[in-house]
Amino acid sequence: MALKTPQQYIESLKDGRVVFCNGERVKDVTKHPILKICRDWMAMDYILQLDSRYRDLITEKNEEGERVSFALMPQRSREDLTRLREIVKLWARVCLGKPPGAKFVAKDGLNAVTVVSQRIDRKYGTNYAEQVEGYRKHLQKNDLAFAMGLTDVKGDRSLRPSQQKAHQDYYIRIVDERKDGIIVRGAKTHISQAPLCNEILIAPCRAMREDDKAYALAFAVPVNSPGITMISAEPEVYEPDNLFDHPIAGSVYINDATIIFEDLFVPKERIFLKGEWEFAGQVAHMFANFHRLSAETYKAMELELFTGAAVLMAEYNGVEKVPHIREKLTWLVMFTEAVEILGRSACENCISEPDSDLVYPNPMYANICKFYFADNWHQATKYIQDIAGGIVATCPSSKDYLNPEIHDFLDKYLGGKEGIPTEHRLRMAKLIRDLTSSYEDVLTIHAEGSLEAQKLSIYALADFDRYKAAAKRAARIQDGTKHNIYSQLPDFPPTGL
Amino acid sequence: MALKTPQQYIESLKDGRVVFCNGERVKDVTKHPILKICRDWMAMDYILQLDSRYRDLITEKNEEGERVSFALMPQRSREDLTRLREIVKLWARVCLGKPPGAKFVAKDGLNAVTVVSQRIDRKYGTNYAEQVEGYRKHLQKNDLAFAMGLTDVKGDRSLRPSQQKAHQDYYIRIVDERKDGIIVRGAKTHISQAPLCNEILIAPCRAMREDDKAYALAFAVPVNSPGITMISAEPEVYEPDNLFDHPIAGSVYINDATIIFEDLFVPKERIFLKGEWEFAGQVAHMFANFHRLSAETYKAMELELFTGAAVLMAEYNGVEKVPHIREKLTWLVMFTEAVEILGRSACENCISEPDSDLVYPNPMYANICKFYFADNWHQATKYIQDIAGGIVATCPSSKDYLNPEIHDFLDKYLGGKEGIPTEHRLRMAKLIRDLTSSYEDVLTIHAEGSLEAQKLSIYALADFDRYKAAAKRAARIQDGTKHNIYSQLPDFPPTGL
Amino acid sequence: MALKTPQQYIESLKDGRVVFCNGERVKDVTKHPILKICRDWMAMDYILQLDSRYRDLITEKNEEGERVSFALMPQRSREDLTRLREIVKLWARVCLGKPPGAKFVAKDGLNAVTVVSQRIDRKYGTNYAEQVEGYRKHLQKNDLAFAMGLTDVKGDRSLRPSQQKAHQDYYIRIVDERKDGIIVRGAKTHISQAPLCNEILIAPCRAMREDDKAYALAFAVPVNSPGITMISAEPEVYEPDNLFDHPIAGSVYINDATIIFEDLFVPKERIFLKGEWEFAGQVAHMFANFHRLSAETYKAMELELFTGAAVLMAEYNGVEKVPHIREKLTWLVMFTEAVEILGRSACENCISEPDSDLVYPNPMYANICKFYFADNWHQATKYIQDIAGGIVATCPSSKDYLNPEIHDFLDKYLGGKEGIPTEHRLRMAKLIRDLTSSYEDVLTIHAEGSLEAQKLSIYALADFDRYKAAAKRAARIQDGTKHNIYSQLPDFPPTGL
Amino acid sequence: MALKTPQQYIESLKDGRVVFCNGERVKDVTKHPILKICRDWMAMDYILQLDSRYRDLITEKNEEGERVSFALMPQRSREDLTRLREIVKLWARVCLGKPPGAKFVAKDGLNAVTVVSQRIDRKYGTNYAEQVEGYRKHLQKNDLAFAMGLTDVKGDRSLRPSQQKAHQDYYIRIVDERKDGIIVRGAKTHISQAPLCNEILIAPCRAMREDDKAYALAFAVPVNSPGITMISAEPEVYEPDNLFDHPIAGSVYINDATIIFEDLFVPKERIFLKGEWEFAGQVAHMFANFHRLSAETYKAMELELFTGAAVLMAEYNGVEKVPHIREKLTWLVMFTEAVEILGRSACENCISEPDSDLVYPNPMYANICKFYFADNWHQATKYIQDIAGGIVATCPSSKDYLNPEIHDFLDKYLGGKEGIPTEHRLRMAKLIRDLTSSYEDVLTIHAEGSLEAQKLSIYALADFDRYKAAAKRAARIQDGTKHNIYSQLPDFPPTGL
Repeated sequence: MALKTPQQYIESLKDGRVVFCNGERVKDVTKHPILKICRDWMAMDYILQLDSRYRDLITEKNEEGERVSFALMPQRSREDLTRLREIVKLWARVCLGKPPGAKFVAKDGLNAVTVVSQRIDRKYGTNYAEQVEGYRKHLQKNDLAFAMGLTDVKGDRSLRPSQQKAHQDYYIRIVDERKDGIIVRGAKTHISQAPLCNEILIAPCRAMREDDKAYALAFAVPVNSPGITMISAEPEVYEPDNLFDHPIAGSVYINDATIIFEDLFVPKERIFLKGEWEFAGQVAHMFANFHRLSAETYKAMELELFTGAAVLMAEYNGVEKVPHIREKLTWLVMFTEAVEILGRSACENCISEPDSDLVYPNPMYANICKFYFADNWHQATKYIQDIAGGIVATCPSSKDYLNPEIHDFLDKYLGGKEGIPTEHRLRMAKLIRDLTSSYEDVLTIHAEGSLEAQKLSIYALADFDRYKAAAKRAARIQDGTKHNIYSQLPDFPPTGL
Repeated sequence: MALKTPQQYIESLKDGRVVFCNGERVKDVTKHPILKICRDWMAMDYILQLDSRYRDLITEKNEEGERVSFALMPQRSREDLTRLREIVKLWARVCLGKPPGAKFVAKDGLNAVTVVSQRIDRKYGTNYAEQVEGYRKHLQKNDLAFAMGLTDVKGDRSLRPSQQKAHQDYYIRIVDERKDGIIVRGAKTHISQAPLCNEILIAPCRAMREDDKAYALAFAVPVNSPGITMISAEPEVYEPDNLFDHPIAGSVYINDATIIFEDLFVPKERIFLKGEWEFAGQVAHMFANFHRLSAETYKAMELELFTGAAVLMAEYNGVEKVPHIREKLTWLVMFTEAVEILGRSACENCISEPDSDLVYPNPMYANICKFYFADNWHQATKYIQDIAGGIVATCPSSKDYLNPEIHDFLDKYLGGKEGIPTEHRLRMAKLIRDLTSSYEDVLTIHAEGSLEAQKLSIYALADFDRYKAAAKRAARIQDGTKHNIYSQLPDFPPTGL
Repeated sequence: MALKTPQQYIESLKDGRVVFCNGERVKDVTKHPILKICRDWMAMDYILQLDSRYRDLITEKNEEGERVSFALMPQRSREDLTRLREIVKLWARVCLGKPPGAKFVAKDGLNAVTVVSQRIDRKYGTNYAEQVEGYRKHLQKNDLAFAMGLTDVKGDRSLRPSQQKAHQDYYIRIVDERKDGIIVRGAKTHISQAPLCNEILIAPCRAMREDDKAYALAFAVPVNSPGITMISAEPEVYEPDNLFDHPIAGSVYINDATIIFEDLFVPKERIFLKGEWEFAGQVAHMFANFHRLSAETYKAMELELFTGAAVLMAEYNGVEKVPHIREKLTWLVMFTEAVEILGRSACENCISEPDSDLVYPNPMYANICKFYFADNWHQATKYIQDIAGGIVATCPSSKDYLNPEIHDFLDKYLGGKEGIPTEHRLRMAKLIRDLTSSYEDVLTIHAEGSLEAQKLSIYALADFDRYKAAAKRAARIQDGTKHNIYSQLPDFPPTGL
Repeated sequence: MALKTPQQYIESLKDGRVVFCNGERVKDVTKHPILKICRDWMAMDYILQLDSRYRDLITEKNEEGERVSFALMPQRSREDLTRLREIVKLWARVCLGKPPGAKFVAKDGLNAVTVVSQRIDRKYGTNYAEQVEGYRKHLQKNDLAFAMGLTDVKGDRSLRPSQQKAHQDYYIRIVDERKDGIIVRGAKTHISQAPLCNEILIAPCRAMREDDKAYALAFAVPVNSPGITMISAEPEVYEPDNLFDHPIAGSVYINDATIIFEDLFVPKERIFLKGEWEFAGQVAHMFANFHRLSAETYKAMELELFTGAAVLMAEYNGVEKVPHIREKLTWLVMFTEAVEILGRSACENCISEPDSDLVYPNPMYANICKFYFADNWHQATKYIQDIAGGIVATCPSSKDYLNPEIHDFLDKYLGGKEGIPTEHRLRMAKLIRDLTSSYEDVLTIHAEGSLEAQKLSIYALADFDRYKAAAKRAARIQDGTKHNIYSQLPDFPPTGL
């Protein structure tokens, strides 16, 4: 069977990869005190798929009869999408709101190149689709963890790739072509979990023009390929195993790394786009289409936890019945459930991609869901901080609490409502601090596309003709336009009564 | 066949009813220049159900094989609810966002007493359910327009019915009991369309205590019963047939009347609740449960029209590409579609009422939908007014525009973008004025329950145990509570790797 | 003495002016049932300045020893501005939040041309300043009511005056030049009170380029000049003297008219800008600078009234102690007082215009004040409507209330808290309807400049260097820039301790 | 002269005080790697007052002719307050938005007991005022750093001090009385800078009732008094001197400590309130009155820095001209300047406390300022994070950037707009992370009183009679009430014209 054990996954990471963290080259990523947090989080993917209670949900037999991760298979129906959504919910609930990333992000890139490669092949007679398929099999067969290398470092955001002035490598590009493959240079950033993956899938993050041709590139390589240097995001925590003070940041280190590609060789059979610049934007766009399911799913789980923390802290402080607190809790409930409704609707009203047999969530609904979540996040943090009180900022370290010299003092004085152990109140305060960190804020706004990206999508997807037809009918404007719904409705007010 | 023609409906209104409007007793409600607006709007219900294109959607054969309004039948499945939603959408689209009220509101009250009467009968051995059923047949057979008399005039809002000080009639109550029925006194307010209905169904608008017993009352009577005086809401328009200046208010006069009941006799067979005070709140609650489908459905249609007006006015002014305008249009699209998604989800995830065979929309989802709509409405009005410009406030009357002495001046000078007829721009400005009137604002906030009512429901419906379980697991708090989802998840971070 | 009595003011309006209202040519503007509302409101200016209690505040001796309206004199010090602010507050408080417009708006245009004419004269040797001064004397001597003709009808908002396509008259322009003056054509819109003024002062509403030269125009003429047609804004009310149902709209009809200028002759001595296109934007800009005092002043008075209505309605309904109501009232208090603080600060920190001896409010503060007011207005309307309840939308006409047939019913049933006369509750509901009309909304957003206009001003006025210096010092960035505050601060953290 | 050098201040801290930090007893607070951050920040107070450029601003001769900190003197005029405001602005600008706390907070407590002690003395013939005065002299003479011990640990927030159930020490209280003083027990929390102060001034944080008598306590003691244990807030940083990654948190450690008082002896002459329970709330209230000046002043300085970071990051990313970015920058400018205007107005319209010769900022204005700042803070963080991009969350450590092995890679790839050194962009990203931390959020909401506290104050201070009089006049309601402004205004509309 193709499924790896968590131990096998961990062993597979000892492969000479070049990783830096906190200013030092990491000898063994599986042993580094902080990277270990990321490792264990990723390992949950492997633990869960072997758990007899979840195996039938998370894994599936592929065409060759091998049991593989369902996430590595193409989703072809509303039922498939709904199932994938359940998997993501499970991942998210187990891992405190953050699905472990072994396949979580990059599967959507794989689907994107699956779709677009067929389009390119049709136009140019290339054989990208076959290569993508080969890569999918490779991933399935070896149950590989793979990262999605989407976002280039970008330089001046107002300029396209080929317009950049300081140098030409702000977007990843071909610098040389050989018989058996290509040499590429550039850097990708915010690449979640890459230092703890086996592979990385590279795709363009934006639409391009003809003079950006050298930047129209999609491919996949093992992360230990010569020429790859991975530099970890600065960790949020500086010591392992302190889950009291950092219940989230101490359990989940996403490690959105910056990855340098200096003269990396990519073998021919792993190239999925090379110079067909008019398809670059399509890959980025299709990635977003597929990836929205993820965002729309795990965020509701994150909010369960978030709203729960608010309710508990209100209870622990003895203020759960105070009107303004109830008002805020009500808002948090609404926020949580609305994200779930909007996300689920996106799946239930999925779109069949016409050039392939794949389905993805309704993009209008999914964009609304993501925007709604991200746009209201800071309001939610304001509310939970308001409910929790200053202790979120001023609580002593758990090491003080656990220090026998002063434990009894703190236990006596930092208690809240009678009957609630002081430790519970402190743990909840720490959880809320973690949940409202700058890191969480920025992740919420920028992961899975910025607020502006969602706005652009919503505008582009809007059925303005329907809206306009409704308004013209109301204003009694007849300008010769017709609409399939509005133009055939009976007169109103009726005449002749 | 039981279905009435619009003419038959209009004829049926000439029945001696006592109606006032703008300070005068109305001789014939079917001929009054302003009430006629309400009449024609109501008549659309009868027009549409006879229209061959819509008949199969809007009407259905009842148990006796008669074709009747589907709205007068009980909905028993998700498919029924979805169909009802389509009917309401059609009604709303035809009538500029406002479903005509022949059965629109009161059907939900009928369902409410259908459910609660069974509960009362079970407890007290009364025969209310049978009487409700009889009334339903009566409505079907005669295809009656009926109004929902829910909201009492209330007096001091901080006091319950029996606590009121100025007098005891702020909530409708029994003042005498006879062998063949009861005598009631009180007043209901905000009763949509009542002066143009055949019947009125009365139900309590709140929970009651034992000393409010005399106020625990539900019944139905024809609106021309002696003792009923209906006083129209002050009309928004003062002249009929001016659809240029008042495209909405000139077409739809909901006429939320104040209705006085002074010693009205109610015959025994039309009483559905009488003194069983512990059920009063249940009727109000069940009405809300059923009625949410309506609100959640027509508002999205209203927003189609609203957003269309914003887009068109932006185009007519030549500013549709200005970034801040696009931003606002995007927001309006999102608002429109989110209301549709939330409303539809409420239907698709409907609840089977356990004491009957009826279904109603998921109340958590429906409350979120209504709150989201109403809470954001004023933001929407700000945006559309910002886009449209001062002309919404300062536009001359259409009578000036149509006055040959100055028509050419106005036509020349009040034009916008080249190619757009000035008349279209003026009509759109007038439409936007109507859409953002104080009347529309207040309707949005208060119809179908106030913002606070939704908040209370959301809080009451919240699955706090799930949220708390998620937060405790994240904070590593073990306090002995168990949760069916969270307590059985695997450990995280994993141990022993 | 130069001050007119209200009767003299009214007499002065009978001068053959061409005014339309509601589709008809108005014979005598002083006798028209609706225009009379505007007339009486305007007359308050004349009543107040003759009132012995206010005369010393509102009027002042001019250089020739004549007592004239202080508003017609140039303000030259912080004390002058503060006094003007007190005058505007009085006007606004007397007239329910809306200062009567005899000089209220156009005085700011007069100041604008006072400033800019001096600049033009300096550059071109013209004698505009003297002509402006002559006009100021004329206004003072005759105590004239004058309107400000600023906003052109604009056509396609994305095009400048000379780029318009449908025709060339979307902005007022010179069409011919004669020895003794010029012939102009075009139209101005949203011109408050013009049909009830004596004079109109015309100025450009935007910056222009050289090819817009023919549109760079400022002048003044009597409103009865041949070639002027004034078309009233559609009135909010249709009957005079109904102050019960329309306490605001029945008292104040601003009548923001559309005014057509077809081949109007302007005599030489009343021209203040003619073709000096580079100064067109300066006039518009200086008008805004002066006019902000008005907006920043009367809006706080409007909010006193608004917030008072919310408090009273809460009390009348018996809900003033409900937590969510108190929360909303608190917000309204804050809104009211913040507008007052911001407006007053703008005056107290006024700017001395360097090219003249005039002062105007601090433009950064004044823009913030206006934006804050307008941006939050819809929130305020949501709150007051939420507090007041559905009666704002559904209340019967006062004619019903005053109809003896049903007065007692309504008096009995529409009462609120014990001890509050029902009439008071109904009057308050009607007041709130008026305060939250579409008209008030649009006026709030668009009068005195749109929200976007304020944003542009704030951005343009921002002291970005100060902000950037603060941030660079914090981030320890030394890029060679210096700042007078930040560059000389001591090191932090300190060294050597 | 009484002024200390920074070295003398530091020496004064070596006094045997009991301080814990991160789980360990701190031997010497002046040498601890993290507490040193707090020490140096505090020392800035002493550095600045000796700086010849600032001495005349910051220090003043007291009645005995000694030059002392102006902050330790009572402010008696608008000029004094304005000067104090300038001092706080300087402190804040020097120290990156956070005034060093040597006297910053507790001076306001000193003023509070100055006022209230006189009231108690008048009622009870006590001599508290004299003792306060003695303490003030002691502070001046020795130029002491003193902390304000206001907030009790509170336990169950829904219960008053004497109602607490788990134990009776959730609010500090007298447990024994001796001839020469009292023995107290309890704990205070969020006590800024206490571990680096010389003294602590204790006062009640809420109003009390008679049965809370034992908790009505105000006094002052040196922080090294036996019985005092100070437990530091968990530090935001774990290593000193890393100002690249933590430009704010590495420079300013406010250390809002939790302080345990177990059987502390307080000598008689340092007691300022003891059992006079009806004055407990007054002390808390007066502290807030005085302290608002601080909050209203430094926050605008903090925002200068904040907004500067947003502008610079926009420029570094090359997006400063993108419309939605400009919109957000405009909002930040407005936010910054509005906080300055509101804060300054509070000072300029100060209140003379009637029972003393002290002045404090206008409490309505000051509360509005604080609320406005805190209520909008999360919006501001959303905007700056949106502008800055994902790099705020994913940037590698500066140690990576400074590591020669990979420095050139990072320098090449993490650059933004041409011409901007990569280091500047990284430093700005780190600054923004620090500025938007959970710590900063919570500080903003809860320091100087929660949002709810401001709302309560605003409601309590509102001039509802004025608002109501305005609304009644508009609605033509005459109910017999009179108002000094509104009742004497002339009739409107005027009659008899």
